[in-house]
Amino acid sequence: MSDEPRQDLRERTTATRRIYEGRIVGLRIDEVRLPDGGKSTREIVEHRGAVAAVPVDSDGRVLMVRQWRHPAEEVLLEIPAGTLEEGETPEETLRRELVEEIGHRARRVEHLADLYTAPGYSTELIGIYLATELEPMDGEADADENIEVVPIPLEEAVERCRSGQVRDAKTVAGLLLAASVR
Amino acid sequence: MSDEPRQDLRERTTATRRIYEGRIVGLRIDEVRLPDGGKSTREIVEHRGAVAAVPVDSDGRVLMVRQWRHPAEEVLLEIPAGTLEEGETPEETLRRELVEEIGHRARRVEHLADLYTAPGYSTELIGIYLATELEPMDGEADADENIEVVPIPLEEAVERCRSGQVRDAKTVAGLLLAASVR
Repeated sequence: MSDEPRQDLRERTTATRRIYEGRIVGLRIDEVRLPDGGKSTREIVEHRGAVAAVPVDSDGRVLMVRQWRHPAEEVLLEIPAGTLEEGETPEETLRRELVEEIGHRARRVEHLADLYTAPGYSTELIGIYLATELEPMDGEADADENIEVVPIPLEEAVERCRSGQVRDAKTVAGLLLAASVR
Repeated sequence: MSDEPRQDLRERTTATRRIYEGRIVGLRIDEVRLPDGGKSTREIVEHRGAVAAVPVDSDGRVLMVRQWRHPAEEVLLEIPAGTLEEGETPEETLRRELVEEIGHRARRVEHLADLYTAPGYSTELIGIYLATELEPMDGEADADENIEVVPIPLEEAVERCRSGQVRDAKTVAGLLLAASVR
């Protein structure tokens, strides 16, 4: 089977209206011409991109984090993650977030995937990494983050994905990918 | 280990400013009071929610779809999915999308997970299902969808997640969850 689309699926932007420029997201409306010549509009949330890590310690435990997620209106159990800041490479963001959120430095980092979180309306692409050979950085975790660190054995974390206790898509994707390479 | 947070992590909304009401997304800014008494703002993309299915035919092939994703500016290979319409239950949306996108009805549907796609800024929760006992509905697929159906054996689809050829988070989560229950 060919891996190329059989037809031209591309939509071309013919006009753009800017709605909002924020700290984490922007919003614009694109008018597009469809492949068949028709017209439509696309609401697009602009996001700089993010990284997430599955940090596994020497005992095989994933250092997960628990935090309030205001859009979800609940506390979620996730892998550590963060938005790229201006001028940062994904690897730099990853190292910064691991220190801020779980107070560790990773001596080894392997790339697992680059995934769009919501490609129907958001530009966000999140790089997912396996982080190992962890070293505690005493006192470096950012107390302002309002985050709790929860160490969970990788197999149990995967089981929590299957049982519905993990409710974050990047976390499920990251944990199952990490389990498949270890 | 306790499964309850050790401290109150909840943020309380003290004011809301509405920015945009659209067809697929809305946008609002919440001012929040943090657990420690401090203040912050949260940019929140409002979304009605969605469903996605891993449709597996009697030959063990996943009926995946290829479509242009304007925010990503590329054609992505995904599992069929769609946004809830007003008044629809997730199961109704699922059945509608399977007919529209891949031209099949599923006689059997199993719930795999409910996942937040981007809980840092979006309210979107996506229900993920395994759909089997598929029946073709000739002529029912919606020609306007500009979608190509791509049947891929489940094991190969999982391998494509590991190799980086699948770049959509819900698709990676759904395929790996489906593979773990079959």
